[in-house]
Amino acid sequence: MSEAIALDATHDPARRSWVPGADGHADFPVQNLPFGIFTPPGGDGPRGGVAIGDSILDLRAALAAGLFTGAAGEAAEAAAAETLNGFMGLGAAPRRALRQRLSALLTAGSAEQRRAAACLHPADRCILHLPARIGDYTDFYVGIHHATNVGKVFRPDNPLLPNYKYVPIGYHGRASSVRVSGADVRRPKGQLKAPEAEAPRFAPCERLDYELELGIWVGPGNALGEPIPVGEAAAHVAGYCLLNDWSARDIQAWEYQPLGPFLAKNFGSTISPWVVTPEALAPFRIPQPPRPQGDPAPLPHLLDAADQRHGAFDLALEVLLLTPAMREKGIPPHRLALSNARHMYWTVAQMLAHHTSNGCDLHPGDLLGSGTLSAPEPSGLGSLLELTRGGREPVILPSGESRRFIEDGDEVILRARAAGEGVAGIGFGECRARILPAA
Amino acid sequence: MSEAIALDATHDPARRSWVPGADGHADFPVQNLPFGIFTPPGGDGPRGGVAIGDSILDLRAALAAGLFTGAAGEAAEAAAAETLNGFMGLGAAPRRALRQRLSALLTAGSAEQRRAAACLHPADRCILHLPARIGDYTDFYVGIHHATNVGKVFRPDNPLLPNYKYVPIGYHGRASSVRVSGADVRRPKGQLKAPEAEAPRFAPCERLDYELELGIWVGPGNALGEPIPVGEAAAHVAGYCLLNDWSARDIQAWEYQPLGPFLAKNFGSTISPWVVTPEALAPFRIPQPPRPQGDPAPLPHLLDAADQRHGAFDLALEVLLLTPAMREKGIPPHRLALSNARHMYWTVAQMLAHHTSNGCDLHPGDLLGSGTLSAPEPSGLGSLLELTRGGREPVILPSGESRRFIEDGDEVILRARAAGEGVAGIGFGECRARILPAA
Repeated sequence: MSEAIALDATHDPARRSWVPGADGHADFPVQNLPFGIFTPPGGDGPRGGVAIGDSILDLRAALAAGLFTGAAGEAAEAAAAETLNGFMGLGAAPRRALRQRLSALLTAGSAEQRRAAACLHPADRCILHLPARIGDYTDFYVGIHHATNVGKVFRPDNPLLPNYKYVPIGYHGRASSVRVSGADVRRPKGQLKAPEAEAPRFAPCERLDYELELGIWVGPGNALGEPIPVGEAAAHVAGYCLLNDWSARDIQAWEYQPLGPFLAKNFGSTISPWVVTPEALAPFRIPQPPRPQGDPAPLPHLLDAADQRHGAFDLALEVLLLTPAMREKGIPPHRLALSNARHMYWTVAQMLAHHTSNGCDLHPGDLLGSGTLSAPEPSGLGSLLELTRGGREPVILPSGESRRFIEDGDEVILRARAAGEGVAGIGFGECRARILPAA
Repeated sequence: MSEAIALDATHDPARRSWVPGADGHADFPVQNLPFGIFTPPGGDGPRGGVAIGDSILDLRAALAAGLFTGAAGEAAEAAAAETLNGFMGLGAAPRRALRQRLSALLTAGSAEQRRAAACLHPADRCILHLPARIGDYTDFYVGIHHATNVGKVFRPDNPLLPNYKYVPIGYHGRASSVRVSGADVRRPKGQLKAPEAEAPRFAPCERLDYELELGIWVGPGNALGEPIPVGEAAAHVAGYCLLNDWSARDIQAWEYQPLGPFLAKNFGSTISPWVVTPEALAPFRIPQPPRPQGDPAPLPHLLDAADQRHGAFDLALEVLLLTPAMREKGIPPHRLALSNARHMYWTVAQMLAHHTSNGCDLHPGDLLGSGTLSAPEPSGLGSLLELTRGGREPVILPSGESRRFIEDGDEVILRARAAGEGVAGIGFGECRARILPAA
């Protein structure tokens, strides 16, 4: 089950699309073909679509036009629904059949070009929605450089807790407040307590931060009491997105003991709208980086040789900031960090196997977050907490402004990009949101 | 909004029911009328019902028989559905109209007795389901005696952390693995690490425990970014149940830092099937007990005078244990603890106001847990962790057996009972589940 996904003609970098703007598109060339839920211009109800260049292929319209049959048709029916939960639950084989068909349909020279072209909408005239009804949302903590940086604040000589290298640490997040890219996020109020203050006060968050994360959409899942073995876990991933785990550092510092973060995180999380499939990411699989000397091996139930061989990703992850003043002056978003998904101490398969190792049931449309993925170098820190050393060293922006934490009107943009020699590069589309003042 | 619910004829202890067995029923006399989802004998689909004595009134059948009209009819339509989410979302006024009508219908002398009787099923021939599709599940920690007892293990002189008396501590739990009373729970495996061991091992949990909690069903809820003021919070409670927050203490001890409990809790939680309404519990409201001298007052956004006057409950809570040997010998379940919901340091309204104070959105069918509700006295400890002092002092059972933690085949039963002078006592029905051996 965990064998590498074979590359095929759908990955061929020479493959070109008849859709204008698709070839060489930073995110959505014909080699990507991510799924999402959108409302087309005119306001007919939400339905499934596929991003291609600056367009969206309307799966409901394409089905009505008779463009899908057989296994691909069954998958297209599921993917055309109001949410992708059913499609995610189908698993890999139908998804791959549909990918083959979509690739053929959208490749230059397709006999059905005219009929398919009638099913395209300009993406900038569509409204994108959450791709699935999220059942449960779990946030992990597998970015070891982030965990180390945060741990250093409390324990300079021994930043990682003893369980970190045995347990893919994770905790339950709030599903209801996950929103799709573009939705504003209101600054939370909460209990803030300065170290020297006698008592907390209730006030708008003063240390608002982002977190750069990879999101993982769960596919078929498991029944309660029936763990998913690590060697089978890859089959339960429906796709990937970007996740900004907005964090109120001051609320978090006061509330988090002994049961973990709560109001510091659940006021809103932002995800990118497109579900990038495991197939699209297949060319960018890499071996899980070897553990530093002296680290323990994963326990046997978390160790699979094939997963170690190709369970990681080479996927560049970027954070950018756009302030109101920059927007006004026409200054483009400023890069705060460039990191990579290769900085995960645990693979996605290990996260799934761990999550279900006690019998916990996962379901199609559940969302997992990786935790903040910081790089080891200063240019790749995935949160302001790390970048400004807890607010002590402000970031200077090209507008001349500085930031210790996120201010009202600031917009945070996450991007992901996979590229390599001899393959067509793909991206995830943006995960962006602006902060509104506290109510 | 937070004024006390007025007592009316539906609470009259002299009111009798024509349903056999309802009068004097420990849980479900005509003064209770809780809602639930059940499948009737014969296997027609799940639908809403009302518990009365040892029977269930089939709301779908009663609607078809024309027994509801007007506001009560609209509420009955919602409550007759496959889940109670829609009904919970309606709020208090329709629920009260339906209660009035149900009470009249089921009271001795009702003109519609014959037609209503045709809509009754024997409860023991029905299958009970989760009453709602749980969106998000949040577990609080408001049982101060439990928090103190657990804290003493780590900090004998200073058991409560500094935030406890300011923050109604809570964290996100797993919604997918909540099951209704009667469903077996499989013992989880997990990473266990003895203090002296060099490394953890993966093995079945050896310190399996229960937690005695009150469950709270969320009603209408709020939009993201729009907190519910504490004075309005009571209007967002749809009802109450019992909750057993099964806990693997050994998994918890190793995993929980720094982000809180995860696999130690999410392998299964058990709730009682009936939604006991705020109206049914109105006679058992009491003032929130005064805080011990020296404790800080709640911050203003968590303080409402009316809530302090009648925001607590006098509700007896009981834990019983039945082992396979006891079952075989015909020994009845043995009481391990008798506690009371009055031992909540924060009211339910304060929990809701806190949860939404940062803008987090709650929705109909969300579930909140109170946290373990231990009494201050040794006979009222709501977990084995407390009762056996971390496994050091085993409990002796009437069968001659002893228990440090829960063993395979053991069944844990929670019960709740509200009673008082001049009012009809009511109960919640049982919350019970048996532990299966690890897979």
